Amino acid sequence: MSKRKGGKRGLTPRAEDFSAWYNEVVQQAELADYSPVRGSMVIRPWGYGIWENMQRALDDMFKATGHQNAYFPLLIPMSFIEREKEHVEGFKPELAVVTHAGGKELDEPYVVRPTSETIIYAMYAKWVQSYRDLPLLLNQWGNVMRWELRTRLFLRTSEFLWQEGHTAHATAEEAEDEARMILGVYRRFMEEWIAMPPLTGLKSEAEKFAGAVRSYACEALMQDRKALQAGTSHMLGQNFARQFGLTFQNEEGREEYAWNTSWGVSTRLVGGMVMTHGDDVGLVVPPKLAPTQVMVVPIARGDDQAAAVMKKGDEIVEGLRGQGVRAAIDRRLHMSPGAKFFEWERKGVPVRVELGPRDLARGEAVVAVRVNEDGAPRKEAMSDAQVVAGMNDRLDALQARLLEAAIARREAATHRGEVSSVDELGELLDSGAGFVHSGWSGDPDVEARVKDATRATIRVIPGEEFRSASAPARCVGGGSAQMEVVWARAY
Amino acid sequence: MSKRKGGKRGLTPRAEDFSAWYNEVVQQAELADYSPVRGSMVIRPWGYGIWENMQRALDDMFKATGHQNAYFPLLIPMSFIEREKEHVEGFKPELAVVTHAGGKELDEPYVVRPTSETIIYAMYAKWVQSYRDLPLLLNQWGNVMRWELRTRLFLRTSEFLWQEGHTAHATAEEAEDEARMILGVYRRFMEEWIAMPPLTGLKSEAEKFAGAVRSYACEALMQDRKALQAGTSHMLGQNFARQFGLTFQNEEGREEYAWNTSWGVSTRLVGGMVMTHGDDVGLVVPPKLAPTQVMVVPIARGDDQAAAVMKKGDEIVEGLRGQGVRAAIDRRLHMSPGAKFFEWERKGVPVRVELGPRDLARGEAVVAVRVNEDGAPRKEAMSDAQVVAGMNDRLDALQARLLEAAIARREAATHRGEVSSVDELGELLDSGAGFVHSGWSGDPDVEARVKDATRATIRVIPGEEFRSASAPARCVGGGSAQMEVVWARAY
Repeated sequence: MSKRKGGKRGLTPRAEDFSAWYNEVVQQAELADYSPVRGSMVIRPWGYGIWENMQRALDDMFKATGHQNAYFPLLIPMSFIEREKEHVEGFKPELAVVTHAGGKELDEPYVVRPTSETIIYAMYAKWVQSYRDLPLLLNQWGNVMRWELRTRLFLRTSEFLWQEGHTAHATAEEAEDEARMILGVYRRFMEEWIAMPPLTGLKSEAEKFAGAVRSYACEALMQDRKALQAGTSHMLGQNFARQFGLTFQNEEGREEYAWNTSWGVSTRLVGGMVMTHGDDVGLVVPPKLAPTQVMVVPIARGDDQAAAVMKKGDEIVEGLRGQGVRAAIDRRLHMSPGAKFFEWERKGVPVRVELGPRDLARGEAVVAVRVNEDGAPRKEAMSDAQVVAGMNDRLDALQARLLEAAIARREAATHRGEVSSVDELGELLDSGAGFVHSGWSGDPDVEARVKDATRATIRVIPGEEFRSASAPARCVGGGSAQMEVVWARAY
Repeated sequence: MSKRKGGKRGLTPRAEDFSAWYNEVVQQAELADYSPVRGSMVIRPWGYGIWENMQRALDDMFKATGHQNAYFPLLIPMSFIEREKEHVEGFKPELAVVTHAGGKELDEPYVVRPTSETIIYAMYAKWVQSYRDLPLLLNQWGNVMRWELRTRLFLRTSEFLWQEGHTAHATAEEAEDEARMILGVYRRFMEEWIAMPPLTGLKSEAEKFAGAVRSYACEALMQDRKALQAGTSHMLGQNFARQFGLTFQNEEGREEYAWNTSWGVSTRLVGGMVMTHGDDVGLVVPPKLAPTQVMVVPIARGDDQAAAVMKKGDEIVEGLRGQGVRAAIDRRLHMSPGAKFFEWERKGVPVRVELGPRDLARGEAVVAVRVNEDGAPRKEAMSDAQVVAGMNDRLDALQARLLEAAIARREAATHRGEVSSVDELGELLDSGAGFVHSGWSGDPDVEARVKDATRATIRVIPGEEFRSASAPARCVGGGSAQMEVVWARAY
């Protein structure tokens, strides 16, 4: 824990060891901490506040597209999980199992939900009778558990928080449209809120969700040029409907199986935010997600000065809040201003306002924006009125700048066009490419060969807007291409 | 499920069988449903929407009193739970235990959290070094599990959703103040939002939380004159701090144990809302909690009429939303207006607006308020403009009316003053008293004797504002009283 070890030690630079940098930033910014429970983390208030802002934004988007929230049981009977063959194969190795409860051994064990398709579609089967009950568009916010051997804070933990949408439709087309619509919602959310621009497209058969017909994904490029699967949306076909008897009477009175989709994003997004925007000073939180967007730090010696500076600071906070800015003042008396600057920079607060007795005398304050055009912090003195009046524009500009910078980084690290061999693909990745587009025959053996040789996998078969201007003609494994794919090493 | 059995059957009247009425209302209003997981329920969108409104209101109140949210692991090592002696005695019989994970038997089993004191104070011990780190005021929204033998939707389920606040303080006084302050927050929330006025006070030793020094509680009286423990706030003393090494350096540099509080309310509050306000027609949702406060039901024959009526309905919805009212229009074409009226009454929507072609011609609409001064629904025709302009007042008046009625019911069912024997107490309860005040010597044997003879328990040692004008002099079990207590049969 950072405090025990002394809060002021520097971070490992990203260029030296990105993974060490990541762990240090997450802990020193007090986003999360390790827990005594193997593979589970504790999300601390600063990290949880970011997640709450993500939740609220996504929840509004889900509701605006006709979805409602509901809550289903944490425990799932083992027999439910085992019913869909591919589903159980995918999840069985990661299950946590409740075998005893109420002081007795259970007749049938329960698993702690790794995902809720089975229990949810069992309930839908009870609720849906006719085409008039469709579409059924529900979402659940909750915790899930997948027993992971190698864990990383936010990126891969045994327990994580997420949302899982589950829908039932009368036709395959409607379900397909839903899965794609949600993919678009996720992309828009990641761009507009996290300033983390993902590539979107279809997963290959080898990479799709256990139990899905088709999986769509958002893949974002981190600063170490590894891809992060940041959200997925699945067309489940009638796979689960058949196993759980989810049928409906169609308009002609015939019984049919419903068509399902499921989709989710998780607290992993917080990790993606860290690896997209953080720098060697610490975290950078996009203004739209920051629990505190503006932190006022008073500078004063002695009680009289302190009282005057605090009063003005409170006025600025008040003025900012009146404009809808999440502003606060750091009243701690036992810390030096320098230590406070350092703490809020490390925590990635978008804007800091410094206010000392001399500023007060001039009717000014100093505005320090966490990241400027050159990527570094910058300070500027201005009148109190300007501090308040210009703040929303300042935050909007920062938000936009972070997105532009992330797009530029992604484009700079993207190789488009022909890649003639697996070796060439490996060389591109080793020499700094993140996303490498190539042709692919569709042969899973080529996919396996690339993975063995380069550790890269097909992240997506890109959607139209992400395809190269001219489609690659050759498969990276030899022969002619059937489609374009994007390779990357991934988290 | 209601649909399979035909949605239009009547409810069992409350007077005939309150418990049957409750189960029917919860299911027919689509608040919740039984699940295939023993003792766990599914919270459906209408019920979850009410819970979301409760969450938002409480969360704002917690934040306004200086608390932040965080998230701690679902699983707790068995050895943690066993560390505080009274705590494990209280919870052991109800634990669900994970013995296997990742395909292997675990070296040490984990319990699914029944409450999180142990894991949270273990983390606080890591974070808190000095008095400057105190107070630490965190809250968690999440799910917990207590394996219950006899379950009731919302009131007692193996898994439930709740919030649990956990705080650490430098002094006993501060912790005591926090526990009482939160009790006041809970009381205010229950009165202002649920219109469910609780009695507040201290629990007896026999009824306090396992591991607490003192437990405070909110006890609300249901329509069947049984009490519902609706929220608790505990002063934990240093019990957990000692077991988990939660110490801090005080201002003089000496190491001390911190003082803790914990407090929670759960989805049980939804059940309390049902039993406080529901009637023989169905649910009544207080306007502040209703996911939809006003439902516009268009009445039309044929497409031309329908289009005109829908257009006007949309305008009314738009106007209402512009005033901050949660309004919607029921566009379903396959249902008769009567069936819709019935559905929204059963679901307890506070106000229904009926809009037919004749109303349209007159520039009018019919406003139906779910509960009026006489306790029954009433309809009134008025101009469109009045529908919109008067809605917030109409909703506020309904909210106030529900609280007044609940207070009146509670007072009518409260017996104050001397009760000279256990037999007399039993007779009072049998003849319709809900809360019975009496004197008590403080002897736990008297408490046990009353419970055996009457099934009533001490709900609270009432706080000042709930005590009788003159304190009872005699203990209900004989001899002189040391304090006033309130007895009731309880959920």
